[in-house]
Formats: sequence, structure tokens, C-alpha cells
Amino acid sequence: MTNWKEIDANAKTWIKEAGERIKNSFPKTLDIQAKSNPNDLVTNIDKETEQFFITKIKETFPDHYILGEEGFGDKLKNVAGIVWIIDPIDGTMNFIHQQRNFAISVGIYENGFGKIGLIYDVVHDELYHAFKGEGAYMNGKPLPRLEEVSVSEAIIGINATWITPNKRIDHNYLAALVKDVRGTRSYGSAALEITYVATGRLDAYISLRLAPWDFAAGIVIIEELGGVVSSLRGEPINIMEKSSLFVSKPGLHGTIMKKYLQEGNW
Amino acid sequence: MTNWKEIDANAKTWIKEAGERIKNSFPKTLDIQAKSNPNDLVTNIDKETEQFFITKIKETFPDHYILGEEGFGDKLKNVAGIVWIIDPIDGTMNFIHQQRNFAISVGIYENGFGKIGLIYDVVHDELYHAFKGEGAYMNGKPLPRLEEVSVSEAIIGINATWITPNKRIDHNYLAALVKDVRGTRSYGSAALEITYVATGRLDAYISLRLAPWDFAAGIVIIEELGGVVSSLRGEPINIMEKSSLFVSKPGLHGTIMKKYLQEGNW
Repeated sequence: MTNWKEIDANAKTWIKEAGERIKNSFPKTLDIQAKSNPNDLVTNIDKETEQFFITKIKETFPDHYILGEEGFGDKLKNVAGIVWIIDPIDGTMNFIHQQRNFAISVGIYENGFGKIGLIYDVVHDELYHAFKGEGAYMNGKPLPRLEEVSVSEAIIGINATWITPNKRIDHNYLAALVKDVRGTRSYGSAALEITYVATGRLDAYISLRLAPWDFAAGIVIIEELGGVVSSLRGEPINIMEKSSLFVSKPGLHGTIMKKYLQEGNW
Repeated sequence: MTNWKEIDANAKTWIKEAGERIKNSFPKTLDIQAKSNPNDLVTNIDKETEQFFITKIKETFPDHYILGEEGFGDKLKNVAGIVWIIDPIDGTMNFIHQQRNFAISVGIYENGFGKIGLIYDVVHDELYHAFKGEGAYMNGKPLPRLEEVSVSEAIIGINATWITPNKRIDHNYLAALVKDVRGTRSYGSAALEITYVATGRLDAYISLRLAPWDFAAGIVIIEELGGVVSSLRGEPINIMEKSSLFVSKPGLHGTIMKKYLQEGNW
């Protein structure tokens, strides 16, 4: 019998410890930062953080699998078993250029179903956490369930790139949406932008090109709050595949699917 | 003889004090926040903060003028004299929805020329400061001068709105730029995004519709660092008028003006 509470407790401890290590890696001043090689820096910290998780997981739960952005985990053919889906630094470009607006993301799935979602905004020391069926929390405080909002009042996370002609979607669909909402933002970290939907900082988040480690944890958190997650065509997310992503407050999701995204018929 | 160092010292003290007051206004938990009326909250804090500055300035420098977003300042017909240009909360929508990603902006001008720029990122306790001819600083530490960067390596702040058809610019110019840069972001606060250019977190920032209080302080800071500021047509900014804005690292500004913005011939 799997002890999920033990897994949960360990995951929380490790993600906080990984955050400490990342924080300690920060160059001390803007001056030093400009002299170092930003590409080397991020590569090391990304890789070291993923290795840190792998060592901990393999020691404690030798029968669990790991799917990580940096590729040090297992080569998985299917969703069977318990799988940790890890992005050691989501928002790598922000990490290099800004030393903020990035997060550690850890989703834990069993046979393809999300059980635990953890996203740690290291700089703000905000740990988002959900355990399937038990709600979602920020630093231990319960997050309220997501409520409906109209398109004209909504602030959505969407990058300007998707409003330019591209091969993934007719950009006119999204341009019409951008015109009608109250405002748009783009922070450059999918995991963080999903937590922004979880806290009401954003009402929805849209991206056309993401990988499992970008959204594995976020999906668990959003669904615990009554939010809706799908691809941009409205399909369920396959947690082992790259995908578009549309995370939203309830109500708003259906309205946008119908009025702007043609119910996915494209 | 105007004592600019005295003005500078007072401005710094007041902006920090205003920041403290804003921080103390934060709802204690996400729960309380959801119950209050967000529009009332911001209106009060915006107005109270502007009134706070006006009281301090009028007491200490009775012959100075004030141009503030909330309209409690003076009705100015021209740039003559010493003018404080104040945005008590730049990024009001973020302030309501996020309690972050907003800033206080104070620019002090003499006969239309920028002397002092102060932008305070309250949540991160980061005070950006420039005094004409003496460089720019973040919390007292000198910021390095801005260096050139290529378009393909640049991260620019630009909102998705400007990539949709609009009456201010042919959106295809900006769409081509968005396609060619390394990435785009949008944080929803012009003052903050200008400080991001100052620290290298962004390489450029573009907006089509801003007011003097959004950029008065930022211009002083960017110019002290060797950055370039103009309208989207490449014209100098008139500090008393609403305007588009293009803030950039040197080199990059000229390249974008020439290659993407048609040297302003539109």
C-alpha cells in the first residue's frame, strides 16, 4: 500500500531544500552577474537541481519513476506506476536575466492520474501545494475555490508570440480574445502563471507549446480549486506528451472555447 | 538657488514612507482580499498616496508644482518651474489582483528637463534612483551602464494588445519584431518595466499609450545608464503629453527603429 502522505512530506521538504540551494547560487550583485556566463550558470543550476531530486527520490522510493526536463530521469514508455514529473527551474530565461519569475515544479502521478502538485516560487518563498481531494494551499493556507468571471473582466496570461502568425493556431482567434479581455500579461514561466490562476492574479493562462514538466504540478493545483484544464482544442491533457495548454477559471473556460476557440474545430 | 540635494533627500524619504503605507494597506490573507471590493481599495490607496505626496511637497517646497495621475495636483499649462510628476501606484490592476508588480513613480523636472527619477518597487523593497549626471542606483548600489545587444538575443516588454490591429500603429511592424526577438514579456506596469530595462531584466520596453506619470521618473533613470528613450516614431518625449514610448538599450534602439519601425515614417 503506497504511503502517499510520506511521499507528500518528502516532496515538500525536498522542494524547499532545492529552493534554498538555488537562492544560494545567486550572484551577489548585478555587477558580478554581468561578468559571469549566464548560459553556464543556468545549465549548472538546472542540472544540479534535477540531480538533487533524483538522488533523493531514488534513495527513498527506489520503485518510483522520474521524468525531468534535463533528461537525467528515466526513459518512460508509458504512465504506469508512480511518476515524478520535475522541472528544476521553470522560467530559465527569467532565472538568468532577472533572478525572479521562475519556479520549481514537481507533479507526482500514479498511472497517469495526478496525486500531488507542488510549485515553489523561490524568490517570494511561496509554496503552492495540492493533494488530490484535499484542496490547494499556499504556504499552508487554503486557497479559495475559483469563481466565474466574464471575458470583459478577465486578465489572461498569454505571450505576444501567439498573436503573430504561427503554425499552431490561426492567430486571429487569439487576437480577438486579446481585444476583448480587460488585460493580458506574460511572465515567462508557465508553472508560475498557473499558480497566478490558482490565486486569482490571472483569470486564465494560455500557451501553445509546453511540455509535461511545465504543467504536471499545476494541473493538480488548478483542478483542486475547481478550475478547468485542457488543450487549446479543449481536449484532455496527456501528461506524457508535449501539448498546448488552456488553464482557466470555470465558466470562462467554456465561454472562451465557444466564442473564440471555435470549440477546437481547427 | 535651488537646493537639489535637499529635494532629492526629501523625495527619497517620502517615497519610502509612501511604500510603507501601501504595504500596510495589504489585506492579510487571500481570503479577506476576495471579500473586499477591489475597486474601492485601489481608489482609496491611489488617492491617499497622491495626497500624501502633495501635502509633503506643498509644506516643504511651496513653489513647486505637482502633476499627479489622480488629478489632485496643479493644472499645469507648461513645463516652467520645478514639477513633480507622480504616479502613486503604477500598475493599479496588478495592485488589486496580485499585490505585486506595481510601483510608485516620482520624476522631478525643471523647466521640462529631468533632474531626479525615483521608482519604488514596494513589494521587493527595491528603490531605483537617478540624479541627473550622477548615474543610476538600485538601493544605493550603482547600476552598470547598458550595453548593446542584438535583436535575436533581446527580451522585450510588450503587451499582446499591440500585436492586434489597432489605431495607433500597423501591428504588422510589431509582429515582425516579436517574431525575431528571443522572447517577450508583459508585467502590466510601465514604471516597473522601465526599471527592468535599467537592470537588464528586459532589453527594451514598448508601449503605445502612456501618460507623463508613467514614464517621467523612468526616463531620467534610463538616460543616466546610456539607454535610449523616444516615442515609437523615434521622436523625443514631451513630458507634458500622453505618448507612445520606446525605451531600449543603445544600439538595439537604432536597429529596431530602422528595421521594424520604418524610422517612424507611418
